[in-house]
Amino acid sequence: MENRTEIATIGEFGLVNKIKNLFDWNIKNNEIGIGDDAALVNIPENEKIIISKELLIEGVHFDLAYCPLRHLGYKAVVMGISDIAAMNGSPKHILIGIALSNRFSVEAVEEFYFGVNTACEDFDISLIGGDTTSSPSGLTISVTAIGSANLDKITSRSGAKPNDILCVSGDLGGAFLGLQLLEREKQVFQANPDMQPELEGYDYIVQRQLKPTARMDIIYQLRDLGIVPTSMIDLSDGLASDLKHLCKASNVGATIYEEKLPIDDQTYLAATALNLSPITAALNGGEDFELLFTISQADYEKLKSISDINPIGFITDQADKLYLGMKSGEMVTLVAQGWK
Amino acid sequence: MENRTEIATIGEFGLVNKIKNLFDWNIKNNEIGIGDDAALVNIPENEKIIISKELLIEGVHFDLAYCPLRHLGYKAVVMGISDIAAMNGSPKHILIGIALSNRFSVEAVEEFYFGVNTACEDFDISLIGGDTTSSPSGLTISVTAIGSANLDKITSRSGAKPNDILCVSGDLGGAFLGLQLLEREKQVFQANPDMQPELEGYDYIVQRQLKPTARMDIIYQLRDLGIVPTSMIDLSDGLASDLKHLCKASNVGATIYEEKLPIDDQTYLAATALNLSPITAALNGGEDFELLFTISQADYEKLKSISDINPIGFITDQADKLYLGMKSGEMVTLVAQGWK
Repeated sequence: MENRTEIATIGEFGLVNKIKNLFDWNIKNNEIGIGDDAALVNIPENEKIIISKELLIEGVHFDLAYCPLRHLGYKAVVMGISDIAAMNGSPKHILIGIALSNRFSVEAVEEFYFGVNTACEDFDISLIGGDTTSSPSGLTISVTAIGSANLDKITSRSGAKPNDILCVSGDLGGAFLGLQLLEREKQVFQANPDMQPELEGYDYIVQRQLKPTARMDIIYQLRDLGIVPTSMIDLSDGLASDLKHLCKASNVGATIYEEKLPIDDQTYLAATALNLSPITAALNGGEDFELLFTISQADYEKLKSISDINPIGFITDQADKLYLGMKSGEMVTLVAQGWK
Repeated sequence: MENRTEIATIGEFGLVNKIKNLFDWNIKNNEIGIGDDAALVNIPENEKIIISKELLIEGVHFDLAYCPLRHLGYKAVVMGISDIAAMNGSPKHILIGIALSNRFSVEAVEEFYFGVNTACEDFDISLIGGDTTSSPSGLTISVTAIGSANLDKITSRSGAKPNDILCVSGDLGGAFLGLQLLEREKQVFQANPDMQPELEGYDYIVQRQLKPTARMDIIYQLRDLGIVPTSMIDLSDGLASDLKHLCKASNVGATIYEEKLPIDDQTYLAATALNLSPITAALNGGEDFELLFTISQADYEKLKSISDINPIGFITDQADKLYLGMKSGEMVTLVAQGWK
């Protein structure tokens, strides 16, 4: 960034005005946007309101050494929308709170909100409010996403039934390996600032980490086919952990198959380069923001017309028992290592 | 606290389960509470949804040296509800996100949520979700409050009209002077840990700072009398700042009177002891969470039956011109110093 304007020179209210000006404040349907004590929202009649909340903490969820603020703003919105998608809802609005230290300039905050704005446009949602405050150190982002859906279309984590087919959208492990590459390059750079990052050929998985998307496209395709998943969760912690959450909530077990796990070529390449297992990355890597869901067998034929969905296994009646069928034919217990 | 259990020993999911167990998870009206990707809420038909968001940052908004975690949990909820009150809405639900460092034990988190729970009971609202994450340092709290109201009853900041009467609930400046006393005692304690805090006789204003309330009682009384304020804001930044926000949004000016400012005896006493002006505290002290609102003159007679509301001035047609009528008869321009 070329310019640096201290936030102190324009104050909190000046900053809020700058943020407002970045957005297209068309007040639709009697909504009150940023600037009042609270925001008003309309939800279509007969629909339920869906609300999710996420916190992103610098040093825990992101590292500004390699995460551009614009991407971070985009990702913050995506994380909120992904939660709404996981309920089979349609996202409508978002509220963003940020707490930031005086290390951040006005231009830095604008970069962040450019990313927020782009995501709002991409997903056709509106930013309706938030909070801007100072912080003794670091950047904290709080995201509240609001959506809606008809009650009979909403999917919770608790509806999976034995013999349902387990499906996952997109591919797995890419965001995790993208992060490992970025961490490696950061260390190389710290050791020798003249070194340029070696990320060539890894653009897809680096983007999976830095600028993920929410799979609303999958939600809309399922809707077009008249398929309501019996249960659904978004993959933020990693397949093994999130499958465990889903099975626990549904009081069922699951068997998945190694050979069915969708893994991108770049993910394989990066895993080899970093001496990591691509299967472990696919099972335990977080932040792919793909959708893990179950459908009844009756819906399976219909599903085949969607290219970016892969069946990876099935639900069993053995509560909390998770198995992985290896390519060797062996069955092993699936361990959720989680995401630290 | 006698016990200290490290969060690491039970993990994030263990912690979330502990929090869940503190609450009465009666799933009403098909609501899905904590534990899914997002929460579902019902709002009465024909009502608008009102949503507010606040961030509380350790070292900026609170100091755990004198703010007990239980009170902090209570205050976090109150801040959210106060925003809903300011829109003339009824609070229904709350989502709380916390990010905390390993300085905090499981017992500390429970203390915080005891306070959240007490506030939820006092205001008859339900905690429906949130996020729990780690932080490199300090405690960050994010509050999303959800309420509703009929569209024709909602009060924004922008409806004040010339000649409307400006009213304020409760008394002013107490929370600010309570904070000054607590800061003084903290410094005394840091200089000599054997010293006991001298807060006797100041219990009311210390409570104003540590355990404020949201004035839903005022909202309900206004409703019973059939009074819909023409505009309203809650006093979080201080009377001068918040009056400025209200006048700016309504494109009007205001004149208020020094002798009309409601100030508690303890606030006067503390101001004298600390060599501060009680009037400045009433004008610029933040966090009273009282309601500042305007009513049309036609409603003034009805209002007199509510004892805890004071008229402090009136609205003028001179946009953004704020005046303070002094006891001496002098008129001075009101300066919003804000709350740093």
